[in-house]
Amino acid sequence: MTFPPIREELRGIEPYGAPQLSAALAPVQLNVNENPYPPSAAVVADVATAVAQATTSLNRYPDRELTDLRAALAAYLSGDSGGVPIGPEQVWAANGSNEVMLQLLQAFGGPGRTAISFAPTYSMYPEYARDTHTRWLTGRRESDFSLDLDAARALVEAERPSVVLLPSPNNPTGTALPPEAVTALCEAVGDGGVVVVDEAYGEFRRAGTQSALELLPVHRNLVVSRTMSKAFALAGARLGYLAAAAEICDAIRVVRLPYHLSAVTQAVALAALRHAPELLGRVDDLRTERDATVGWLRDQGLDVAESDANFVLFGTFADRHAVWQALLDQGVLIRETGPDGWLRVSVGTAEEMTSFKHALTRALKEIA
Amino acid sequence: MTFPPIREELRGIEPYGAPQLSAALAPVQLNVNENPYPPSAAVVADVATAVAQATTSLNRYPDRELTDLRAALAAYLSGDSGGVPIGPEQVWAANGSNEVMLQLLQAFGGPGRTAISFAPTYSMYPEYARDTHTRWLTGRRESDFSLDLDAARALVEAERPSVVLLPSPNNPTGTALPPEAVTALCEAVGDGGVVVVDEAYGEFRRAGTQSALELLPVHRNLVVSRTMSKAFALAGARLGYLAAAAEICDAIRVVRLPYHLSAVTQAVALAALRHAPELLGRVDDLRTERDATVGWLRDQGLDVAESDANFVLFGTFADRHAVWQALLDQGVLIRETGPDGWLRVSVGTAEEMTSFKHALTRALKEIA
Repeated sequence: MTFPPIREELRGIEPYGAPQLSAALAPVQLNVNENPYPPSAAVVADVATAVAQATTSLNRYPDRELTDLRAALAAYLSGDSGGVPIGPEQVWAANGSNEVMLQLLQAFGGPGRTAISFAPTYSMYPEYARDTHTRWLTGRRESDFSLDLDAARALVEAERPSVVLLPSPNNPTGTALPPEAVTALCEAVGDGGVVVVDEAYGEFRRAGTQSALELLPVHRNLVVSRTMSKAFALAGARLGYLAAAAEICDAIRVVRLPYHLSAVTQAVALAALRHAPELLGRVDDLRTERDATVGWLRDQGLDVAESDANFVLFGTFADRHAVWQALLDQGVLIRETGPDGWLRVSVGTAEEMTSFKHALTRALKEIA
Repeated sequence: MTFPPIREELRGIEPYGAPQLSAALAPVQLNVNENPYPPSAAVVADVATAVAQATTSLNRYPDRELTDLRAALAAYLSGDSGGVPIGPEQVWAANGSNEVMLQLLQAFGGPGRTAISFAPTYSMYPEYARDTHTRWLTGRRESDFSLDLDAARALVEAERPSVVLLPSPNNPTGTALPPEAVTALCEAVGDGGVVVVDEAYGEFRRAGTQSALELLPVHRNLVVSRTMSKAFALAGARLGYLAAAAEICDAIRVVRLPYHLSAVTQAVALAALRHAPELLGRVDDLRTERDATVGWLRDQGLDVAESDANFVLFGTFADRHAVWQALLDQGVLIRETGPDGWLRVSVGTAEEMTSFKHALTRALKEIA
């Protein structure tokens, strides 16, 4: 027996994670879709006060049911759902939306069950499936990264997945799903599965793009996941959550580890939610910057995917690694991900995007 | 298909968790082995300052490798390991030791593999096994809750478990394992598995009881898990960790969710570790109180399990529920757990233990 006795399918696998470089090597970090705006002094002060308060009873276990946090998240979502009211019993939260996804696959996936998505899509999904022993299958997206609904329905009918993972906007392409796609897949899946619309970047959607939250009253097998990492600029705080039928939240409660979400995390998230208007104001700035970036990249003659997110997929390059490296040589770190020939840039501050544009202009000249 | 489409083995299961009652109903809470001493004002202030500092960059993802925290935990453990040096690469941390256990079973358990423990033991263990699809088996402890080493070895040789879970001190009995038991099981398991000595209550051990940390240089398949919930009085902060061979930590890194431990959690734990001498001073008070409680219970003519933990198992009662209820009627909440006829009380402050003793005296009179 080879030591250590790790499962055979995990042996030799590298831990998941984007390559990271220090700010000294790459002062402009546009690789992991972080929000470039740090919390304001007012947010920092409110978080510190809330955590100090929580710390006075930190010898006690936290609220296992996240009562106050679920209520605050429900109130927030009810303001971003096109008028659809969302109650606390319809909300669940965990340490990042990746723990939410793991819990969903623990409850609804597992051995003998199948999860599907449509590639290119988020590269963590197959890891959730692997870690829960769920069979993993992907259909293909169209060349513009949209879904072919007939083909998607056919795949669902042939494979009877118990979990369908649909990021909207999709990562790394930025593509949002129209409501008719969500409806078609919820209907095709039926009561035998759940359809998870992963709206990690939902708040960055363009005017006219609808959130799947609006469809919750129509489809009881629909789950909409969100995160505070992006719109709330809290990637370091690890707070992911979902909205779904109360029965789905109750099913997740069976597999959640008891006391999975610390009293401190609950306090930090509650403090940030009290500052939602300020934090979401930055989202508008980033949407404007995103649209400008898309326009500028097209002006350079590049192909650019439509984006409802805080990142932009552009290309195509015969040697995308050379372009990525040329940017890094100028201190700009973006992500070499997605289909062959494409690159992904996160939307930073106006200043960071100016650095990106200068660096890319020079890189394109070098290649030409 | 019944909605929601939860896995069949999970349907109808209640979420794990001790029954909780408000402080209004049960002012003396001695049911979940919490440390009764809240963090001091100095700890609260240092935590708040550390969190405020971390919050200024909370828009960025946390350190995926927990570099500073692993170093601080290694330094702390090196002071509680009988002189055995423990390096940062030998330490791993997660959201509570239950996430540590889940990760261990994801890496080393799973379908086609077996985990074993010896009953009566911690009631969450079968849930970790269930949630990772690991076959779960238990041997039996002796009537004094110690291990019969020959029988334990025989079980390991017959079943070839890839994970052996050995709490020391055991929950709910308080029984510590002697080093020869750990050695016997590490040798029986060999390179085909890992032996996890769960020292969640390790700091409460009596003088002369050895930590399994001392055996790390001898057995490369040994894992020693700890938590900051109990000795550090940080149950609300959710910080569990382990020490093991670096190869074991690297195996866990393959299954951990990326960024599983928030920047805030890392900052809180680091701040608390700076206050280790103060926080551990309270452990000595609790050990004294524990020993006094054991003595007092024996003076009442009760059977009491030897305890190296911050709780005491005592009995036996023909109707333990009646005793539990009689205590609760007097505002004292203990835990109805463990073998038939036994009850478990957590060690609280001297004042809380006085309330417990008064309430139990009255309950025993009522019964007699």
